[in-house]
Amino acid sequence: MNEQLKKIIESIQPVNQALQPEVEAHLNDLTKPPGSLGRLEDCVKQYCLARNTSKPQLKKKKIFTFAGDHGVADEGVSLFPKEVTPQMVANFLAGGAAINVFARHVGAEIGIVDMGVNADLEGMKGLYHKKIKKGTDNIAKGPAMTVAEAELAILTGAQLAQEAADNGVDLLGTGDMGIANTTPSSAILATLLPCAVEEITGRGTGIGDAALKNKIEVIKKALEVNKERLTDPLSVMAAVGGLEIAGICGLILGGASRKVPVVVDGFISSAGAMVACLINENVKDYLFFSHRSQEAGHTTFLNKFGVTPLLDLQMRLGEGTGAALAMSLIEASVKMYNEMATFSSAGVSNQD
Amino acid sequence: MNEQLKKIIESIQPVNQALQPEVEAHLNDLTKPPGSLGRLEDCVKQYCLARNTSKPQLKKKKIFTFAGDHGVADEGVSLFPKEVTPQMVANFLAGGAAINVFARHVGAEIGIVDMGVNADLEGMKGLYHKKIKKGTDNIAKGPAMTVAEAELAILTGAQLAQEAADNGVDLLGTGDMGIANTTPSSAILATLLPCAVEEITGRGTGIGDAALKNKIEVIKKALEVNKERLTDPLSVMAAVGGLEIAGICGLILGGASRKVPVVVDGFISSAGAMVACLINENVKDYLFFSHRSQEAGHTTFLNKFGVTPLLDLQMRLGEGTGAALAMSLIEASVKMYNEMATFSSAGVSNQD
Repeated sequence: MNEQLKKIIESIQPVNQALQPEVEAHLNDLTKPPGSLGRLEDCVKQYCLARNTSKPQLKKKKIFTFAGDHGVADEGVSLFPKEVTPQMVANFLAGGAAINVFARHVGAEIGIVDMGVNADLEGMKGLYHKKIKKGTDNIAKGPAMTVAEAELAILTGAQLAQEAADNGVDLLGTGDMGIANTTPSSAILATLLPCAVEEITGRGTGIGDAALKNKIEVIKKALEVNKERLTDPLSVMAAVGGLEIAGICGLILGGASRKVPVVVDGFISSAGAMVACLINENVKDYLFFSHRSQEAGHTTFLNKFGVTPLLDLQMRLGEGTGAALAMSLIEASVKMYNEMATFSSAGVSNQD
Repeated sequence: MNEQLKKIIESIQPVNQALQPEVEAHLNDLTKPPGSLGRLEDCVKQYCLARNTSKPQLKKKKIFTFAGDHGVADEGVSLFPKEVTPQMVANFLAGGAAINVFARHVGAEIGIVDMGVNADLEGMKGLYHKKIKKGTDNIAKGPAMTVAEAELAILTGAQLAQEAADNGVDLLGTGDMGIANTTPSSAILATLLPCAVEEITGRGTGIGDAALKNKIEVIKKALEVNKERLTDPLSVMAAVGGLEIAGICGLILGGASRKVPVVVDGFISSAGAMVACLINENVKDYLFFSHRSQEAGHTTFLNKFGVTPLLDLQMRLGEGTGAALAMSLIEASVKMYNEMATFSSAGVSNQD
């Protein structure tokens, strides 16, 4: 494996479980019945353990939206044409996409990363230029990329997370843009969960019944064609994954390596998260799952992976939109922990 | 009925369904697959119809937290002593409660209203002094209040909503504080949904099994003792309700009368909302249900009333905490509608 990536992965420590009693004691001293803020209490607990402190700060939030194209788009698996990927990158940079609106709303920075868009984007200002290659190859015919390319894409994401941590970011979020990218995401999850292709494959941007049937066949073909390459999580990413999905996987590894929790967006980000968690088992405790995507396979993933997301708003857009909204809830939980009065400080009687 | 209240109720118009096609057309022109922002698209649609405009603004959000005491607290239905109600009012005014933290986080104003706290709060600065009386009477022994008192409490809430609307508030939220107030809320909902007392009664701030059994018996006794008074929604509020619950009911009526949507907090607020919706059937379309409370009866209410809240975070605190968090989602939906680029403006190709 790439030496730099190996070092990052090996540096990921478990979260500090020992802090739990102290954090819980403080939560129970705040002017509310114990546990009455439900999952927000869980959020700040997890945040403290991940950050390794009982005095948490959450000042800077940043979402990275990774963009990449997919050779498999040629198989008719998406409703939108491939040129939408670079067009949407331009839209992100101009501030007009949903992720821009939501990031501004919650006060998060965004970074748009060209991991593998099939267009010349060198002239685009404000873009992180990290292109590995101009889109993956068609997974229905062979591997998406080489293992070395996958490692490089993962390393790229990890380095972005580490740079962000060095710049004071204390909560990261993932996002994706890539026409056809529910197809490789389903292929990854079918292999690693594992589950039947039918259980993990949905309508993406909104394809009809015939196109869904075709998409399932395409994924099955991809898994058959790449059968001998599906030997470990990294090889699965290389064989049937995507450059932006590898970037997301890397962001998660890099965040965990610096004890910066990562908010996982929806279906595509979950595929990246799953690979990251299998690469190092300490990673899972650093992750917040933001929302249940309406993409049918996401519920299969959430159930099998044993996580319950914070939101269920029937969204299925990606870009980091779910991560942005969930970041605001996590921030609310940290503020609650830091700003609420205690029973004694407020002169409020505790339970009888 | 009180003439002023009658006028307000009669002035409530249906939301403007005719705007729906125009609003949907704009949503479908934004740079995202149609429908892919799920419930956020529903939120802004509902907001437009309620506000009677396809060019919505959401500049000022305000939550009113109504406080009141309950004679039925003497029956041992709560874990916390009665003096906590005025203590928490002081905590709200000092900015140290959960609702203060969350309201600051989402940029909402809060108004704390003494509807019927059993303490002399005249000296408290920043409080809305609207005390009808020093707490309700014990519903296990007779009516909580007279019908005239209930009408006055509802009118008070409605006038606060109308004043807020006059001051430019375009989204209202409800909140409550009152030791023992899940008991009258369950009594109201058991009567009006209707359903069995067991189905709608939960542990409130966290009572144990024996206390829960007692609470159910107390509610049954209240419904028996007040049997002949439970003739219409307003009489139910008077007989087994609460002054803060009546204030919430009034805020909702007043908001709807000015086409200002109201975000309903949790279980106690739902009892107030139910009465408001039965008083005028146009009201329901002005309401956003913020979250599913962990209070067991809330799911019974949501199912029977046919509404799905925006959030499910296992919270059970009241105060308006759920309303505050949901307001931020509604605001995100309005920003999405106003700030996103369209396919043509951003030069993004639409689906094939």
